[in-house]
Amino acid sequence: MTLDELETPAPVVDLARMERNLDGMAAYAASHDLALRPHIKTHKTPWLAAEQLRRGAVGVTCATPREAEVMSEVADDVLLAYPAVGAVRARRVAALPADIRLAVALDSVRAADDLADAAREAGRRVGVLVECDMGMRRVGVQTPEEAVALVRHVAGRRELEYAGITFYPGHIREAVNQQDDALTALNQRLGRTLDALKRAGLDPATVSGGSTPTALRTHEIAGVTEMRPGTYIFNDRTTAAIGACTLDECALTVLATVVSTAVPGQAVIDAGTKSLGREPIRTGDRSVPTGVARPDEGDGFGAVYGREDVIVRAMSEEHGLLDLSRSDWRPAVGDRVRIIPNHVCIVVHLFDMVHGIRGEAVESSWQVPARGRAAQADVLG
Amino acid sequence: MTLDELETPAPVVDLARMERNLDGMAAYAASHDLALRPHIKTHKTPWLAAEQLRRGAVGVTCATPREAEVMSEVADDVLLAYPAVGAVRARRVAALPADIRLAVALDSVRAADDLADAAREAGRRVGVLVECDMGMRRVGVQTPEEAVALVRHVAGRRELEYAGITFYPGHIREAVNQQDDALTALNQRLGRTLDALKRAGLDPATVSGGSTPTALRTHEIAGVTEMRPGTYIFNDRTTAAIGACTLDECALTVLATVVSTAVPGQAVIDAGTKSLGREPIRTGDRSVPTGVARPDEGDGFGAVYGREDVIVRAMSEEHGLLDLSRSDWRPAVGDRVRIIPNHVCIVVHLFDMVHGIRGEAVESSWQVPARGRAAQADVLG
Repeated sequence: MTLDELETPAPVVDLARMERNLDGMAAYAASHDLALRPHIKTHKTPWLAAEQLRRGAVGVTCATPREAEVMSEVADDVLLAYPAVGAVRARRVAALPADIRLAVALDSVRAADDLADAAREAGRRVGVLVECDMGMRRVGVQTPEEAVALVRHVAGRRELEYAGITFYPGHIREAVNQQDDALTALNQRLGRTLDALKRAGLDPATVSGGSTPTALRTHEIAGVTEMRPGTYIFNDRTTAAIGACTLDECALTVLATVVSTAVPGQAVIDAGTKSLGREPIRTGDRSVPTGVARPDEGDGFGAVYGREDVIVRAMSEEHGLLDLSRSDWRPAVGDRVRIIPNHVCIVVHLFDMVHGIRGEAVESSWQVPARGRAAQADVLG
Repeated sequence: MTLDELETPAPVVDLARMERNLDGMAAYAASHDLALRPHIKTHKTPWLAAEQLRRGAVGVTCATPREAEVMSEVADDVLLAYPAVGAVRARRVAALPADIRLAVALDSVRAADDLADAAREAGRRVGVLVECDMGMRRVGVQTPEEAVALVRHVAGRRELEYAGITFYPGHIREAVNQQDDALTALNQRLGRTLDALKRAGLDPATVSGGSTPTALRTHEIAGVTEMRPGTYIFNDRTTAAIGACTLDECALTVLATVVSTAVPGQAVIDAGTKSLGREPIRTGDRSVPTGVARPDEGDGFGAVYGREDVIVRAMSEEHGLLDLSRSDWRPAVGDRVRIIPNHVCIVVHLFDMVHGIRGEAVESSWQVPARGRAAQADVLG
């Protein structure tokens, strides 16, 4: 099958680009003696997790119980980087296969107790990473003292094993070469937490941090032992805007068809919010590389692959409006384009099937088993 | 099962509210002798389409081939309100069951020819509604002359049956009681198109228009025979902001759990962009009803049911940040809330399962078979 035969809209992955992305991050982690634990929220696909593990990843990171269930088919070491709050969720997490090494990130006594109760019922122990806020102000204990207190609580529950601390530097969205100040602040804050834990005799075995935008600077964060980038497998327009990849390293595009050119000055494609998500480009610094985004007019919701000056200006659920005002290109109804999305993790979450291509050839097509919420058995009948 | 036993995040539908919404729109259409052809993009669920048909809907409106395939199990009259451009898509549409009445909306010769070619291959005829732009500037022929020309082209293809015209007034987003000017302009523009078609001897049998925000004023648009509201079955925060429903008529909420209160001034729930979508409230008029939206600070991405002054201020993929700055309410980790989403059609598209409740009781749980893209057989194996 070739690209021309695929029905649109459809996400297609340039497999050669993806392999280079996987190889590159694996090499970076190895060269700095960092454990690589990719977040699979980006691809939600077991065989892609297997590709990451084959390249030396120590395990995987998941956000939802469904993701952890699906990934436990290929990974024997799973971090749920999300608190298993509530008895229903905690029991589902504790019911993961007993032979995998399981850890959960959390930031509250309640989350620790829910998990401990479920682990006791299941007759197992579960590792815990205490989540510390390093400036993102989303989740995580706020002070070194709170970290010590929560670690003590965790260590006091027999069913839990204190495995370390975790943080997510998702607030660092400056261009990669302008992250110095943010990384300095992070280093200071993390240093205070690590000192307090050491003084309390609670030195963490694992210090897990890192996201794709800061990934290649993880070795500059003192004390970090593990990184959890997700987006790097495919990359996207936001990652390129931050300078954490080039547009040539964006592996996933959404194949779309021009379905209308009736309104002058635009072409309408069959990829809208239900294919691309309404995700703006978010960077800390608006002076982004030329051609990637246009701060003066809005960045749009994606760009045409190979014609990056043509952006998706507006969307309805099943319509994307290509802005032709900066281009001489005048597509006809029936023409096909590939859209580089702003946020690839959302795109994968929106589709059931993804296609892998080499050149024009469709080499493989796969389902996305870890999308959705329910246990697979409940959905597939 | 009760609400407390559901795993979160999960969309829950207040069935009594939904039934009132269905009854209300059916009564409106009947009282004005308008054909009601609900757009099922909002619920993507055959049994809900059946509820609409049972209340007098003449058929259903779909946007994707998958939706049309799934709905043809319960509906014998299907409008694909989307051009079947490209041989792959056109063949899939022409392969819909031969015994349903099928029509397709389109705005180009190419779309008409693709459909006609596929219909000829399949040995069937397909109805066509010519899409006319009535001011939204998304799709649709621009002038009465273009409408006449495309209708003539359609009428000249033996496999196609000219069934009428269609338009979508999605640009009318003023509050319902401030839509007068917009409806006047629409009436004038539509009138010119209808006159031109009449003069050409091409009087349309069907004139299909109407969306949820303008639904209850459809009878004020001269010549319209059919309306295609979708959102009304559930309604959402945007519909309420426009005044096309009250917050009490929002039937679908996303059940979520507070998973972190570590950062002061906020509570984090387990519903983020992968549950709610990053959908702003979009209205033409910012002077929206009090309590629904807060133009001064941003409207957020949803509001807490029963505490509508608490909004989802920011989101990550699996995190929603509740802004507590205008409320005395201080939830604890483990507390549950229900979020009224800004755009319910996106929420349904993000989930595999939806739950129907009466009070605290979960009366039924259903899959969402028409979400996704591929033929069901390809996905389910």
